[in-house]
Amino acid sequence: MDEHDPPKLPTIRDVALAAGVSIGTASKALNGQGQLRPATVSRVQAAARQLDFRPNSLAQSLHRASSLTVGVISSDSFGRFSMPVMEGIEDVLGSAQRSVFMCNAADDPAREKMHIDALLARRVDGIVVTGRRTDPRPALDLGRSALPVVYAYTQVAQPHGQTFSPPCLLPDDFGGGEQATRHLLEQGRRRTAHITGPQKFEAARLRAAGYLAALEQGGDDLAPARVLNGAWSETWGREAVGELFSGPASARASPPDALFCGSDQIARGVLEALRELRLRVPEDVAVVGYDNWDVFAEATRPTLTSVDMNLRDLGRQAGQRLLDLIGGGPGRDPGGPLRLPCRLVVRHSCGAPVNEEAPDPRSST
Amino acid sequence: MDEHDPPKLPTIRDVALAAGVSIGTASKALNGQGQLRPATVSRVQAAARQLDFRPNSLAQSLHRASSLTVGVISSDSFGRFSMPVMEGIEDVLGSAQRSVFMCNAADDPAREKMHIDALLARRVDGIVVTGRRTDPRPALDLGRSALPVVYAYTQVAQPHGQTFSPPCLLPDDFGGGEQATRHLLEQGRRRTAHITGPQKFEAARLRAAGYLAALEQGGDDLAPARVLNGAWSETWGREAVGELFSGPASARASPPDALFCGSDQIARGVLEALRELRLRVPEDVAVVGYDNWDVFAEATRPTLTSVDMNLRDLGRQAGQRLLDLIGGGPGRDPGGPLRLPCRLVVRHSCGAPVNEEAPDPRSST
Repeated sequence: MDEHDPPKLPTIRDVALAAGVSIGTASKALNGQGQLRPATVSRVQAAARQLDFRPNSLAQSLHRASSLTVGVISSDSFGRFSMPVMEGIEDVLGSAQRSVFMCNAADDPAREKMHIDALLARRVDGIVVTGRRTDPRPALDLGRSALPVVYAYTQVAQPHGQTFSPPCLLPDDFGGGEQATRHLLEQGRRRTAHITGPQKFEAARLRAAGYLAALEQGGDDLAPARVLNGAWSETWGREAVGELFSGPASARASPPDALFCGSDQIARGVLEALRELRLRVPEDVAVVGYDNWDVFAEATRPTLTSVDMNLRDLGRQAGQRLLDLIGGGPGRDPGGPLRLPCRLVVRHSCGAPVNEEAPDPRSST
Repeated sequence: MDEHDPPKLPTIRDVALAAGVSIGTASKALNGQGQLRPATVSRVQAAARQLDFRPNSLAQSLHRASSLTVGVISSDSFGRFSMPVMEGIEDVLGSAQRSVFMCNAADDPAREKMHIDALLARRVDGIVVTGRRTDPRPALDLGRSALPVVYAYTQVAQPHGQTFSPPCLLPDDFGGGEQATRHLLEQGRRRTAHITGPQKFEAARLRAAGYLAALEQGGDDLAPARVLNGAWSETWGREAVGELFSGPASARASPPDALFCGSDQIARGVLEALRELRLRVPEDVAVVGYDNWDVFAEATRPTLTSVDMNLRDLGRQAGQRLLDLIGGGPGRDPGGPLRLPCRLVVRHSCGAPVNEEAPDPRSST
């Protein structure tokens, strides 16, 4: 493609000319260097303002150790999990005067490589990798570059025998499962079940492990644990309720009084199916979801108590971690996976006093 | 913050040394310039490969008319409307070797200004502005810069007396409303109502206007149009069904047989309320939604026919438009708002033969 003439931006030469000083003096005045008379500095600054002069940060970057840019590679498109993470990253890096290159690898290794090449050529100071699910992925292939990399809401598969592991920030899904289950037990519930997604997801396995751990510490009067794996969908939530409440007579004898769901979508299907069975929530059955996805958790009847993974905060911490690595070298960072705490947002589906946050005042569309 | 030593990246000097040629020759060989012997070119290329040499695009940008970067400013965070738009933009610009700076202005004019200053200092070739709703916003304040700007899923308020207007790409919400309504009429429905969001949203006004226009052309046997404005929420969808179907006896005498909803969230509330009134969808009442948001449109019973705004395609066209402006100057672009067609995705809520797309095979979480 032909490039048209670049817009005629004012240069430091124009500023010097307007202020009646040398280029060196103009540069020193704008950068606060050297020993200049205040009147000279003021004159140069006024000229720069009048000409709308903006220093060329490309040129500055060439003379600095840093380009003040970083790359964010989302391994597979911009989804509802990567969005808040990216917002958090951008928030922290923007405050540190870092501009963020956004790269969508779209689950395509060739495209990921293309993005890496472009980011290295642009001399970014570091890279954050994020994704749609927390399961391990191969490490970025940076060739011989020693560029700092942080993984957020995804993690690196540790090759056998390798000792160094880059920092990977992940939600504490085990702790989230524990919190949700403990909350149900604290409401006096004794017959629980966990309805969740496919076992091949690490998130599903960890949340289930947290559920089981909370039950083990929950007392002797608890009914046995039940974990039902299916899809991450409302349909599966409805089907699972069918299995638990409309199954053979033996099962119906002591149906659950509490359901911990692995996602808000599953919980929504669960709530609908319970309503159709004329079971009351929370009186007959308490329900907890996972994700704290407002369009679900605030639309159900009753509104849904749910585990929030604090993804925006996870993104912020990933950005801060990257800044630390850029600033201080890898020595200070132990690397490896770091699990950040989740938080239970209590609404009306369990009968507990509500700590519901004020809804987002921005309406949609 | 202190910057640590930059990683020791190989330079053109290292490549020249390894290949036993001058720096000038190495540069020509890698850029395909000059008259060099094929053996020399091969030797230089081999040395570059072995050293993992990557040209510094910061330095290249200084010598070019273009930095090969663009900025994308999202006026208010990364939401479900701006994400597909940004994906489309990144898709087109990435293919054109342009890297994208992602900027979240978070509905804060001071933050928008900070991002603009950073983008101008980085000498981006152009800017795309996107947002969470299509209503007019003030134009970006670029000072004296003549940088190309394209607006996507948002538009610029035209100041009185100003003639030039930057390109603004928007979904054709009027056409979307017409399509949805015509589809209902084609299924033989004659008593329609439109349940939508607040009138202050341009999107709500245009969709309603499309509904009315389709009814005007729909024949003499149609019941009068009814437009009900409320919130963009499931709760409002349920309430509106109450008004339409459980109101005074005079209204109940001829309840609607078709409901066009201004969002999928409204439609979901509508479907739930109809189910609770034991009205069958589509037999008794046909329902169309808006947004084609899969987590809603595919989870309802029956699945929801819905208008898709083609936002990813809108983003691609915005990116292409920006590339055209960068490449050819503003002369070719008439500017102003351009409305891109929406498309009806037919599922099971209207009784028409289904053209449902294959669901996304990727599961969530």
